[in-house]
Amino acid sequence: MSEVNQATGNLYVVSAPSGAGKTSLLKRLIAELSSVEMSISHTTRDRREGETDGVDYHFVSLEAFGKLIEDKAFFEHAEVFGNYYGTSKASIQEQLSQGIDVILEIDWQGARQIREQLPESLSIFILPPSKEALQNRLDSRGQDHAAVIDKRMQAAKSEMSHYSEYDYLVINDDFEVALEELKSILVAERQKLSRQKQKFAHLLVNLLD
Amino acid sequence: MSEVNQATGNLYVVSAPSGAGKTSLLKRLIAELSSVEMSISHTTRDRREGETDGVDYHFVSLEAFGKLIEDKAFFEHAEVFGNYYGTSKASIQEQLSQGIDVILEIDWQGARQIREQLPESLSIFILPPSKEALQNRLDSRGQDHAAVIDKRMQAAKSEMSHYSEYDYLVINDDFEVALEELKSILVAERQKLSRQKQKFAHLLVNLLD
Repeated sequence: MSEVNQATGNLYVVSAPSGAGKTSLLKRLIAELSSVEMSISHTTRDRREGETDGVDYHFVSLEAFGKLIEDKAFFEHAEVFGNYYGTSKASIQEQLSQGIDVILEIDWQGARQIREQLPESLSIFILPPSKEALQNRLDSRGQDHAAVIDKRMQAAKSEMSHYSEYDYLVINDDFEVALEELKSILVAERQKLSRQKQKFAHLLVNLLD
Repeated sequence: MSEVNQATGNLYVVSAPSGAGKTSLLKRLIAELSSVEMSISHTTRDRREGETDGVDYHFVSLEAFGKLIEDKAFFEHAEVFGNYYGTSKASIQEQLSQGIDVILEIDWQGARQIREQLPESLSIFILPPSKEALQNRLDSRGQDHAAVIDKRMQAAKSEMSHYSEYDYLVINDDFEVALEELKSILVAERQKLSRQKQKFAHLLVNLLD
């Protein structure tokens, strides 16, 4: 088959409330589907044991991070508990140019910023199958105080209220079904005309010659 | 899960040159994926042994067919070897309204007519992996005259020259891979926001309540 030309990968923004199972789903997706990787964020926080620079994060100093902000090197960045996290444009473009689909695990605010800068990006929102299921998943050890669970539910609701800004909606009722649905989205998007035209440019010339 | 509301199915137009393996792929797709059916055409040709009215075709008289044309009951119709074939609007709408994805196996001309009348329909073009593979598949018993094969190749090229009018492009190199890609397209389209909003209307209200 004439696969000389390399198609560009797609960028996926994936959001979900805590408790929807997003991280587990994405882990399996990356493990089971070829040519898809998580985006690697830049961070100023200390490297933890077992973490590798350039694999888990790009670990940088506060000074270097500030310089990257100045250089507009990030699609988006945020401060969480005193540490900075950012999504580097160059890092993602590098993965995409290799024909790799890149997944960005990010909240609705980050998703909006990506969408504005990369309208061709695709977005997926993952939802739990019911309020009760979500409540159970948010009650981590089955012994949290009602007030704590309630606070988590409010945060989850706030995130979920943005579901309609996304291209795809996956309901995580049965984990394996949701995983298949996620995989299908990536596989289907790879069959879109514009991407196939790039990938099979030589074949198309050959067939119509 | 709150699946009270029924989402409407998608209409797929699938085209391919002879020899691309379209019919075999669609047969397996229908057998292995739930809630997807072939569109049932109307025809004036005689029913053959083993064919069932309303399953293989809607068998109608020439007079009835003419009346349906007058009533603009068809999305498209064509004459093939003296017999008429038509795609009934009511028949397809009935399947779609039951939440069933409907597949229309049709050439590029029919596809254009469907696209004009139903812009929300989706279209898939299936291609062989190389000119040589296509030639082999068109040489039915390995003993056809070069002139016969050449004529079939010209017809195939003419059909293939319209590939870029389609939403999706599937290359049938490995049959099982192509089948998975076809399935993925249907499954992924079912996860699109607009369709999920219909299907999970009650769940969405419940989650954000």
